[in-house]
Amino acid sequence: MKSNIPVTSLQRLPVYLNYLKTLGGDVKFISSGAIARALGMGEVLVRKDLAYTSAQGRTRVGYVLSELIAALEDYLGCNDIKNAAIIGAGGLGRALLSYGGFGNYGIELVAGFDNDSSKIGGDVAGKPILDIADLDKGIRELGVTLAVICVPVKYAQSVADRLVECGVKAILNFAPALLNVPEGCTVRNIDVAANLAVLYSMS
Amino acid sequence: MKSNIPVTSLQRLPVYLNYLKTLGGDVKFISSGAIARALGMGEVLVRKDLAYTSAQGRTRVGYVLSELIAALEDYLGCNDIKNAAIIGAGGLGRALLSYGGFGNYGIELVAGFDNDSSKIGGDVAGKPILDIADLDKGIRELGVTLAVICVPVKYAQSVADRLVECGVKAILNFAPALLNVPEGCTVRNIDVAANLAVLYSMS
Repeated sequence: MKSNIPVTSLQRLPVYLNYLKTLGGDVKFISSGAIARALGMGEVLVRKDLAYTSAQGRTRVGYVLSELIAALEDYLGCNDIKNAAIIGAGGLGRALLSYGGFGNYGIELVAGFDNDSSKIGGDVAGKPILDIADLDKGIRELGVTLAVICVPVKYAQSVADRLVECGVKAILNFAPALLNVPEGCTVRNIDVAANLAVLYSMS
Repeated sequence: MKSNIPVTSLQRLPVYLNYLKTLGGDVKFISSGAIARALGMGEVLVRKDLAYTSAQGRTRVGYVLSELIAALEDYLGCNDIKNAAIIGAGGLGRALLSYGGFGNYGIELVAGFDNDSSKIGGDVAGKPILDIADLDKGIRELGVTLAVICVPVKYAQSVADRLVECGVKAILNFAPALLNVPEGCTVRNIDVAANLAVLYSMS
């Protein structure tokens, strides 16, 4: 879809968007240099990244702030509603179901799935917890295209396989396993403990 | 500390370690080719990455599994106990305090910090929740060198500043902000919603 943009640039676009949204109502224009200074990045890089969007910088004044925000939101699909599900309603899954930040990116959490009968039929922050035995049916009926995996590691790959079969396009995986998915689906593995250990090794 | 290894290689070492630990007791030897196939990676890359550790592959048989695991654990500092704290004991913070996977990397969660008086003085999974007003004192007294930030975005940078002042070396940040830290501390920002949006854009 956005095949012309390097992944590293794409990953920085939400960073710009978050920063720009923090700016007060008095700010009408912003230059790539000001963004770069605020975020501790190089100005050329910022300008290159923003050039992938439809935003047009103007000589001397920079970007119109509202236009730049709109261009980033458009590029990141924030205005296209996408349904997402959280697989595994343990501590992490429940925390994510309660997290309000998905809406900023047009992501609507529609359900959680779990295999615990004491959780099934209940809800977290208004999102129903459905039986993971009905995962395939639920994902299809709810039109889920994004999923976050928060199940124990031994179930993670089989859950991912089922999600892909049901047409899920993007998976964020918190189980400490490297999940393999076929082309047409993208996965990112976030092993929190490993991340922290690696950061420590780098310091 | 591990300045000779590329960050991308370092980030893959926990992936190898996790995979190797799943292998049953019958497996005594493993080749870089077998690891590469299992993880869907290139063999040359695997061999290069493992060469940063003290593990020695042997012609024909590959690595002794137990030696390779020990070398990876040694390189990642899994045998050096490091104290960590979770800042912010909301849903995500509490989920992380309950997560058992940190011990695999020698990371011991010693406390959570929060500003909510109904939480302060209590505990989550046996870890005390301390008053964030006493963050500096607590971090120093407990010898915390790693921290995970799970506070609302508007507090994230000031919390990070205080952590750095107290000698914290590595910060994993779940608040949707790009935190700036000085040299001597490393930070990784994980914005879950943005990650999911970016993955979707890539698919």
